[in-house]
Amino acid sequence: MPRFSFHIHATDGRARTGEITMARGSIRTPAFMPVGTAATVKALRTREVEASGADIILGNTYHLMLRPTAERIEKLGGLHKFMGWTKPILTDSGGYQVMSLSALTKRSEDGVSFASHLDGSRHLMTPERSMEIQRLLGSDIVMAFDELVALPAPRETVEAAMQRSMRWARRSRTAFDQGGEHAEKSALFGIQQGGLDERLRAASASHLQDIGFDGYAIGGLAVGEGQQAMFACLDYAPAQLPENAPRYLMGVGKPDDIVGAVQRGVDMFDCVLPTRSGRNGQAFTRDGPLNLRNARFAEDLAPLDAACGCPSCTGGVSRAYIHHLVKSGEMLGAMLMTEHNIWFYQELMAALRSAIAAHDLTAFATRFLARYKARAAS
Amino acid sequence: MPRFSFHIHATDGRARTGEITMARGSIRTPAFMPVGTAATVKALRTREVEASGADIILGNTYHLMLRPTAERIEKLGGLHKFMGWTKPILTDSGGYQVMSLSALTKRSEDGVSFASHLDGSRHLMTPERSMEIQRLLGSDIVMAFDELVALPAPRETVEAAMQRSMRWARRSRTAFDQGGEHAEKSALFGIQQGGLDERLRAASASHLQDIGFDGYAIGGLAVGEGQQAMFACLDYAPAQLPENAPRYLMGVGKPDDIVGAVQRGVDMFDCVLPTRSGRNGQAFTRDGPLNLRNARFAEDLAPLDAACGCPSCTGGVSRAYIHHLVKSGEMLGAMLMTEHNIWFYQELMAALRSAIAAHDLTAFATRFLARYKARAAS
Repeated sequence: MPRFSFHIHATDGRARTGEITMARGSIRTPAFMPVGTAATVKALRTREVEASGADIILGNTYHLMLRPTAERIEKLGGLHKFMGWTKPILTDSGGYQVMSLSALTKRSEDGVSFASHLDGSRHLMTPERSMEIQRLLGSDIVMAFDELVALPAPRETVEAAMQRSMRWARRSRTAFDQGGEHAEKSALFGIQQGGLDERLRAASASHLQDIGFDGYAIGGLAVGEGQQAMFACLDYAPAQLPENAPRYLMGVGKPDDIVGAVQRGVDMFDCVLPTRSGRNGQAFTRDGPLNLRNARFAEDLAPLDAACGCPSCTGGVSRAYIHHLVKSGEMLGAMLMTEHNIWFYQELMAALRSAIAAHDLTAFATRFLARYKARAAS
Repeated sequence: MPRFSFHIHATDGRARTGEITMARGSIRTPAFMPVGTAATVKALRTREVEASGADIILGNTYHLMLRPTAERIEKLGGLHKFMGWTKPILTDSGGYQVMSLSALTKRSEDGVSFASHLDGSRHLMTPERSMEIQRLLGSDIVMAFDELVALPAPRETVEAAMQRSMRWARRSRTAFDQGGEHAEKSALFGIQQGGLDERLRAASASHLQDIGFDGYAIGGLAVGEGQQAMFACLDYAPAQLPENAPRYLMGVGKPDDIVGAVQRGVDMFDCVLPTRSGRNGQAFTRDGPLNLRNARFAEDLAPLDAACGCPSCTGGVSRAYIHHLVKSGEMLGAMLMTEHNIWFYQELMAALRSAIAAHDLTAFATRFLARYKARAAS
């Protein structure tokens, strides 16, 4: 079993379908990673996540370092054993949440000091500490620690953050490689920065390749710039990264974002949208999202999506019942909706993989998007 | 398939074990019915309830009549289809919740008028309306509508409520029997009242047998009188009811309540305790209840209960993980704890049935209670 390998089985335009092979299992690409923030994909048992077709989930370094702490998870046998998930886990570096959730952050060349959003306790996050935490968790795919910039921002700010992120990427690489046994069986991904500036993105990609990583993430997108600007960046950013390594678009996204990003050469995605929406009464369907709180579903005996393979849609659960559960604030509503949404995302990824393998991606994307957006337009 | 039959397979002292046979399935007694208030056993899928060994669940007339309404559930095909549960359902009469949850209640010989706790809308509940609602829901075991009294209360108050409950029991019987097809495939239980007064209980039992029911509930207990007073009542109340019909102790109870009641001849139970506790961080175990919020579980790799057959206890889920989920407010904590607690209750009922069949109930009860209460004493 190789530590990490990536094979592309087929391409269609810039899109690719393939497989990442790791000790804990294979990851079919393009892949969607459900988010398991606090050692749980919210409202789902791990066997329910696995049944949806997910090959890998994401864990959040920031949340886990604060509670129950990485040291405790390591003592208890690692994140996989702790939460009962045997397949690969990708952990983020903690950088995004440090800067978006914590208080009193203070950045320096060394790293970021911050106060916990849970209890105000002060912590220092550095590339070295991020690598240590992800090692203690037992992560399969470790993300380099980078510095984020909220867009829009002056070019100088974006460039300075990108340059610092590249210095941190090198420190991440060094610290990861000193991780002993963990480094021998896990992978490290670098993160491209540079905002919406093609030349900064190119410089960042070049820096990262000089260091060398198992995979490359496209960072700093899906932060409010809009789909059009994101797609414009994805028209060049993936091609700046190595052809023979997976490309991971962090924090994306809506189903139509994913389709467009796959068409532009992205291989991996993560997003809280299917799980968070499931707790908020929104169901993804092939005919677009539905708000199950709406009274028009009160006597609707149809499943959420007749083409969906999830246990609810194939097991006779009606929109009327889900509507009742959501209106009544019943936990089961969030459980069934989250499960359905995760299935929808995994079925979308499977359909994209099949379409690429059949060299039919353009037609598939056109059909999918036309149907997905028809209701919104009506 | 008979409409309703009850066979006693074995007795041990006053305890009995047997089986109720109905069109939708058999109910092994002594039986514990998980409470599915609003068309869901909170935090569990119906297949998870079924896997725990539950032969029957309880639905709440009061909640369902207000939301989504009995008329809507009937229109959608009945409660079984609505919530995806194929086995028998017992519905309460609505009386208890009308008097405990609603506002501005006004009692008369006709019934009880009240304002919904959800939207303040006014409703009138009568024996006839209760029977209609339970018929619209498609209930398998329908409960007569009775009048409750909060204890302690003057004997005259308890007696007057009992006498009115008996008049309402007769009206319930008449209305149920006019239910057409539904009456031909479902059962009606009467409810004994009379507080803690043996002669009133005897008079109530006599009234009910004059009317004739498929089963008999012992009502008005578990309302704060304490276990000792309840057991004192159960020392005579079950024997006042027919030998050859099931006896149902409503709203009971803690595991030790159930053991004592089974020893006194009770066949059926329902209680929110396992489900509500599951959402509040309390796990039932053979060594007594555990509060999983307690920091002493933070690094405890043991399952909730090593002897439990639930998916968590047999699947490697540790107390440390559950502690983390509960502390983090994660829905999965409530899901796994509720599932475990329902399994604990069903395994207790199975053990009681086996002990009765083996004429070993006294020894079983002594062993069970000694271990269950040892931790509390330590």
